Amino acid sequence: MAQQRIKAGIVGGTGYTGVELLRLLAQHPHCELRAITSRKEAGMPVAEMFPNLRGRVDLQFSEPSASALDKCDVVFFATPNGVAMQEARALVSAGVRIVDLAADFRIRDVSVWEQWYRMKHACPELVAEAVYALPEVNRDQVKSARVIANPGCYPTAVQLGFLPLVEAGCVDLDHLIADAKSGVSGAGRKAETHILHAEAADNFKAYGVTGHRHHPEIAQGLAHVAGRPVGLVFVPHLTPMIRGIHATLYARLTRPVDLQSLYEKRYAGETFVDVMPAGSHPETRSVRGANHCRIAVHQPQGGDTVVVLSVIDNLVKGAAGQAVQNMNIMFGFAEDAGLTQIALLP
Amino acid sequence: MAQQRIKAGIVGGTGYTGVELLRLLAQHPHCELRAITSRKEAGMPVAEMFPNLRGRVDLQFSEPSASALDKCDVVFFATPNGVAMQEARALVSAGVRIVDLAADFRIRDVSVWEQWYRMKHACPELVAEAVYALPEVNRDQVKSARVIANPGCYPTAVQLGFLPLVEAGCVDLDHLIADAKSGVSGAGRKAETHILHAEAADNFKAYGVTGHRHHPEIAQGLAHVAGRPVGLVFVPHLTPMIRGIHATLYARLTRPVDLQSLYEKRYAGETFVDVMPAGSHPETRSVRGANHCRIAVHQPQGGDTVVVLSVIDNLVKGAAGQAVQNMNIMFGFAEDAGLTQIALLP
Amino acid sequence: MAQQRIKAGIVGGTGYTGVELLRLLAQHPHCELRAITSRKEAGMPVAEMFPNLRGRVDLQFSEPSASALDKCDVVFFATPNGVAMQEARALVSAGVRIVDLAADFRIRDVSVWEQWYRMKHACPELVAEAVYALPEVNRDQVKSARVIANPGCYPTAVQLGFLPLVEAGCVDLDHLIADAKSGVSGAGRKAETHILHAEAADNFKAYGVTGHRHHPEIAQGLAHVAGRPVGLVFVPHLTPMIRGIHATLYARLTRPVDLQSLYEKRYAGETFVDVMPAGSHPETRSVRGANHCRIAVHQPQGGDTVVVLSVIDNLVKGAAGQAVQNMNIMFGFAEDAGLTQIALLP
Amino acid sequence: MAQQRIKAGIVGGTGYTGVELLRLLAQHPHCELRAITSRKEAGMPVAEMFPNLRGRVDLQFSEPSASALDKCDVVFFATPNGVAMQEARALVSAGVRIVDLAADFRIRDVSVWEQWYRMKHACPELVAEAVYALPEVNRDQVKSARVIANPGCYPTAVQLGFLPLVEAGCVDLDHLIADAKSGVSGAGRKAETHILHAEAADNFKAYGVTGHRHHPEIAQGLAHVAGRPVGLVFVPHLTPMIRGIHATLYARLTRPVDLQSLYEKRYAGETFVDVMPAGSHPETRSVRGANHCRIAVHQPQGGDTVVVLSVIDNLVKGAAGQAVQNMNIMFGFAEDAGLTQIALLP
Repeated sequence: MAQQRIKAGIVGGTGYTGVELLRLLAQHPHCELRAITSRKEAGMPVAEMFPNLRGRVDLQFSEPSASALDKCDVVFFATPNGVAMQEARALVSAGVRIVDLAADFRIRDVSVWEQWYRMKHACPELVAEAVYALPEVNRDQVKSARVIANPGCYPTAVQLGFLPLVEAGCVDLDHLIADAKSGVSGAGRKAETHILHAEAADNFKAYGVTGHRHHPEIAQGLAHVAGRPVGLVFVPHLTPMIRGIHATLYARLTRPVDLQSLYEKRYAGETFVDVMPAGSHPETRSVRGANHCRIAVHQPQGGDTVVVLSVIDNLVKGAAGQAVQNMNIMFGFAEDAGLTQIALLP
Repeated sequence: MAQQRIKAGIVGGTGYTGVELLRLLAQHPHCELRAITSRKEAGMPVAEMFPNLRGRVDLQFSEPSASALDKCDVVFFATPNGVAMQEARALVSAGVRIVDLAADFRIRDVSVWEQWYRMKHACPELVAEAVYALPEVNRDQVKSARVIANPGCYPTAVQLGFLPLVEAGCVDLDHLIADAKSGVSGAGRKAETHILHAEAADNFKAYGVTGHRHHPEIAQGLAHVAGRPVGLVFVPHLTPMIRGIHATLYARLTRPVDLQSLYEKRYAGETFVDVMPAGSHPETRSVRGANHCRIAVHQPQGGDTVVVLSVIDNLVKGAAGQAVQNMNIMFGFAEDAGLTQIALLP
Repeated sequence: MAQQRIKAGIVGGTGYTGVELLRLLAQHPHCELRAITSRKEAGMPVAEMFPNLRGRVDLQFSEPSASALDKCDVVFFATPNGVAMQEARALVSAGVRIVDLAADFRIRDVSVWEQWYRMKHACPELVAEAVYALPEVNRDQVKSARVIANPGCYPTAVQLGFLPLVEAGCVDLDHLIADAKSGVSGAGRKAETHILHAEAADNFKAYGVTGHRHHPEIAQGLAHVAGRPVGLVFVPHLTPMIRGIHATLYARLTRPVDLQSLYEKRYAGETFVDVMPAGSHPETRSVRGANHCRIAVHQPQGGDTVVVLSVIDNLVKGAAGQAVQNMNIMFGFAEDAGLTQIALLP
Repeated sequence: MAQQRIKAGIVGGTGYTGVELLRLLAQHPHCELRAITSRKEAGMPVAEMFPNLRGRVDLQFSEPSASALDKCDVVFFATPNGVAMQEARALVSAGVRIVDLAADFRIRDVSVWEQWYRMKHACPELVAEAVYALPEVNRDQVKSARVIANPGCYPTAVQLGFLPLVEAGCVDLDHLIADAKSGVSGAGRKAETHILHAEAADNFKAYGVTGHRHHPEIAQGLAHVAGRPVGLVFVPHLTPMIRGIHATLYARLTRPVDLQSLYEKRYAGETFVDVMPAGSHPETRSVRGANHCRIAVHQPQGGDTVVVLSVIDNLVKGAAGQAVQNMNIMFGFAEDAGLTQIALLP
């Protein structure tokens, strides 16, 4: 296939979404990795920090200023919240297309964003332009986007799980419940006490029940599809595994529906969403390292409550994999280019 | 303290509830362990199978027939379902009091039991007499009971979590949701593939969404308190830890209630139920090895959905610890005798 | 690339080496998977047992007799010990090349094999012909082999670690020590109590100190290279992780050597052996899911004891990956064909 | 028992040895906990940081200056290295006995200490007086000590394992090898990246092969017993569990010895050292939460290499438990007072 190779850069590559982007892009057939920046680690070979990349990625972390990011076709921001909004404008002006894996461009209402992320937004005009890029919802907009807001991990698992119900208008939209469980890598590669192995292993807890930043993101996405506001209770939990999100979703049916058929039809043709056979229980390990979301839908005891089980790898479909999927769409590559890895089981 | 020492026996001590009973009874001030039976392992010192007991428990597993269980004051059944119902009658006739840690006497409607446990009940008359012994609900009946149905692990965590709401009559009883997560020891010490370390570690999944044996047990317990049937969706999950249950409970409020105060008042005076301060997120490790249930109650965004977080150690408050607590009540000991261990953290 | 696609079959695909072969062969550019047999599971889609393969492997487990294995170019035995020796002769006669991932053809001295594996060998004549296929030692013999004895997991990590020292003749060959630690998947996908999650998680123990089947295999391999018998103490340990072997090797230097240089030269040109910079400590996760062996060599305090650290993924370089590597060599493919996955970190 | 209750204080209680001391002292029959200091967390109830202590420890962290430590009978330092040496002199002058769980008083040669711990020693005169308190070696000196240097975790497991061999003078003392594996809590409750759950789980690695602070401590202890310097290679490893150390020790026999008998005799009468039957493999979980060291001794294939397996809980016998054991000895209590917990298994 005599296809172009585009030039890609990564800003902020020392976290888990950064190393995961490196893993995926290093195997991508149409993409050439040009630079990965880190002010703090400039000069260190990335394979020294992430030895799985030895022999496969020869780049060093570089100073952003010396990285010629404006010569790239696409730049990924694998940075903390609040960085991409500072740098996006200049890159977009230089013709670079942006994929932000953080939250800077996810919330359309800037005041809501500022309230949850506790900072002044530096670039509201790009928020208006940015595409919230869940390909299974708005693939067409992604194609031409200059700025991609890559969805969060919980929001990906929860929205893909609820989507068929909300689109069908068959559930009580004022009382959706998302009970979500995440592996510890979801908290990032940050030196914080509560995610130490000795704290988080062999332990289980909820957190953020009073409020979590992914709540407005999920609510916005579901409201967009519903065409009206939705009521959502979102309870995230920390579970002692490295990767994986399992969302258990509850909704009240307002009319009878063939749920299995509804889900299968909605996701027919979607490469990365796998509706499992009736009665299934998807496991997070079945998507470990892969870009898939696997979903099962149940109606326990034939009652009026739907239970949806939705699993993703938070670092792949919940972050770097979906970013590459969006890049593929933006540049007209096969949507699964570089994303054909099979999940590692066991 | 010139108190009596009662004689205790354990039937079927090779599983996790068995070794946990041994750990607790070996440290109990008023209890003398006389026999622990296992047909399969008769003759083996228990400390050979469970080396944590070396130097503390000198017993060998013995043949049931040779164990003089009828000379005991109390006999614990730490057996698979369907064993206690075969042997209880003779022991009760001999004046022995029975604590069954399995499910044989938990469901009052024998036909429901037979449907879920897929066998003919061998001793329905003792079902009628047996006390379903959640001390925080029916301590008085436990005192004089001859046959104790010790509650299941999920049912303990879920019922203690819902109880104040159901008693207060302030939630929609037709739509209770219990999203529960259990450590792998909850599946028992059985050689089964799906609970191998290489299958269950670094993985998360729901199971039994279409139906789980603890569903009728929980529903019966809540209905008993409510004075009417309840509607319950119960979704258990397997989480990669050894011990611990975390139940996340959802209910719709039907009238405004001061939830924190409701819970604190309900459990004031209960040694083993700890209502945590408002805004808390109890961790399973905070009860690892201890007989406590820790509970927090939330009302996210001030909406009409209550979220209750309830944690126990499935092998202690969810099994052996509660069995000892019940024994203490039956024999008039301090309710926390032998149960003062502090949870192991980290 | 207009290269041939060979036809491959797998005998016994329900274990971990089986699913790992499926993962690798499903992504192999020159290999077509024709059959995977399992008497017990015949008729079940493999993706039902291993949901990571959904959408990627459409085969069902089939009866061996109905699997036309004799039409394959290569057949992998991912079976328990003692199966391949029963079936290899017929396949070899039919012109099929065999890769046995079990131990049937590993030990050249049949009487030693029979003593350790406690059965009569059914096919001694193929033992004589079989090639013990550690490519880094005897790649040339692999090329033309009809029967491949694929090395064990511990033996791969230990031999690759000791090899440069033994070849150089610079250590006391009578007192080699291999302290090896394996993830639990090394014990296979067998329903056994001691490898349950609740037994093996958060626990560490040695096993088989008095004797382990991999001892004669390692000793044979090192003796072959040394040209004389070696003395080896081998202590395997079970460590609470899913995949990975870490071998810590100790040997007494008999003369001064530039160890770093010795190792780098020995493995220069080897795609799958990575000698890390001086002072390194390889991590098992740096090879999780990948076919690499990473090695570091130390001389603590400049004393006369060499310490070698050698890590592999027991299911890849220690089993299925090495089997594919051997297949690639046998059929003249690039040695890393289908083996370019980057390790999953974190 | 009309025994005195002594007054105890803890300096620096926010780490793992601190919370473990609290767990043990809260259950101690002869000890009253008076103060636990933390400059950073002064005012916070300890049970807020460590919820396992809710209902059992009512203390708040307090400012050291306001804690009346000089009114205590004993003060434990559960502080980073370098703190106890600043404060010990004043307390000792006030008649308080000191147990330092850090390393300030462990190394008798102050210049060696300063080299390994990279600071100037503030109190060399108390180093000279301090007792390195491994009770199984020098119980008598502990009785009258004013300053206790509580041994490190690795040094406890390794010394107890080697002791009988060294005392018997039956091994090559120039070539001892200690291959030790520790759970992650051994690194402390510090916000560091490499001990995050997502880094340390499902992973295994050696560290500090070129030099570890416990090397001089172990070498000093063994040399003391041997009456001559010893040669030791010490390789620590990080293993993905919370608690536990497994030391695998190798030594070359210089003469034939009945090893099992040697070990059993050496530790006869020791409450906290359990020599297991010949052929055993002790598991770390068999001492989880308990103050025991369990040891097995092997002579593989009847060769000249002894293999000793020694396990402890690094936070109990390797830290807080041994500190309490030393306190018991100092104050004439039963040596196991407050230390009768049975290990938590599973």
